[in-house]
Amino acid sequence: MKIPPSLERLVHELARLPGIGQKTAQRLAFHLLRTEPGRAEALARAIVEVREKIRFCAQCFGFAEEELCPVCADARRDPDLICVVEQPSDVYVIERSGVFRGLYHVLLGVISPLDGIGPDQLKVAELLARCDRRPLREVIIATNPSIPGEATALHLSRVLAGKVARITRLARGMPVGAHLEYTDDVTLNQAFDGRRDMGAG
Amino acid sequence: MKIPPSLERLVHELARLPGIGQKTAQRLAFHLLRTEPGRAEALARAIVEVREKIRFCAQCFGFAEEELCPVCADARRDPDLICVVEQPSDVYVIERSGVFRGLYHVLLGVISPLDGIGPDQLKVAELLARCDRRPLREVIIATNPSIPGEATALHLSRVLAGKVARITRLARGMPVGAHLEYTDDVTLNQAFDGRRDMGAG
Repeated sequence: MKIPPSLERLVHELARLPGIGQKTAQRLAFHLLRTEPGRAEALARAIVEVREKIRFCAQCFGFAEEELCPVCADARRDPDLICVVEQPSDVYVIERSGVFRGLYHVLLGVISPLDGIGPDQLKVAELLARCDRRPLREVIIATNPSIPGEATALHLSRVLAGKVARITRLARGMPVGAHLEYTDDVTLNQAFDGRRDMGAG
Repeated sequence: MKIPPSLERLVHELARLPGIGQKTAQRLAFHLLRTEPGRAEALARAIVEVREKIRFCAQCFGFAEEELCPVCADARRDPDLICVVEQPSDVYVIERSGVFRGLYHVLLGVISPLDGIGPDQLKVAELLARCDRRPLREVIIATNPSIPGEATALHLSRVLAGKVARITRLARGMPVGAHLEYTDDVTLNQAFDGRRDMGAG
């Protein structure tokens, strides 16, 4: 194969990205090669900048450019309400939805005994310290609805008991747009368990 | 939404790539943020380098880093055989397959009257000049099997007539792995037309 080395290198680097196969990497490389001046360079600069600037927030361990992340630094956010998530990327998703107005706490992982990850490997002590620092109205546990996510939620509900006025877990049930026919048994079970009144008979 | 600006910028730039939606852009951004040191920087460098180094080959108009592309510069390639393609990316695809040992000629487009693109807007004169410079054994026309690709092939076969010993077009028919049941009528028609003998009766 006779291909200019710089083009081959770009295809190779793009193909290392998750979910990007050889063909998609080629297509992206040709696009970057032909796109208007400045566009490809802007992407390259954005990659370098994100690596240089992003670190963990000193309070919540979400992504930050300063000591505190934009959420923790925002005086308009409700400081008596903390949403606990597994990863900084979860903060991004909830922020995009605009559904939550409190602060976050990122565990930077989940309890997973098989991988040797217990509460001490996560930011659990830091969460307890935040609860001790000021009386919280509510802690919302938003770890994933997976086995390690549930185990982590259970552990947190135990260690937080007595320290917080209210501990909640995100609702489980059928997502919008789902069909009963294709819903798995566990989700169906939880949808029945968590059913809500629609009015009196 | 409270997201560090550098992260938002990276997601924005990634989402501009073809076939990359908002969710995929987020996933790629988080990956680039967390990947091992040097990996993301290597991608950024590859993007910048490809833009700085790649230009069109002076002979075939494929992608090159020098005056001539690696194919044209290779003395072991057969100079009496030219494969005509629409885009430099087509050269990449044929080179990857390893199926062809001659030289290329890239038209940098196809004839498309509706877009105001005729032979003069393409590298057709340059192809004729190459044919005049040395007697070619064969010109293989490998424009796409689309309406503009066919129109271009027809035009080339006319202007090349008498200048080249042999003018051919890539075979049309059913691709490997196809099913008769799902094959479109035009392809089926061409597969019947181009049928080959398998032995005497």
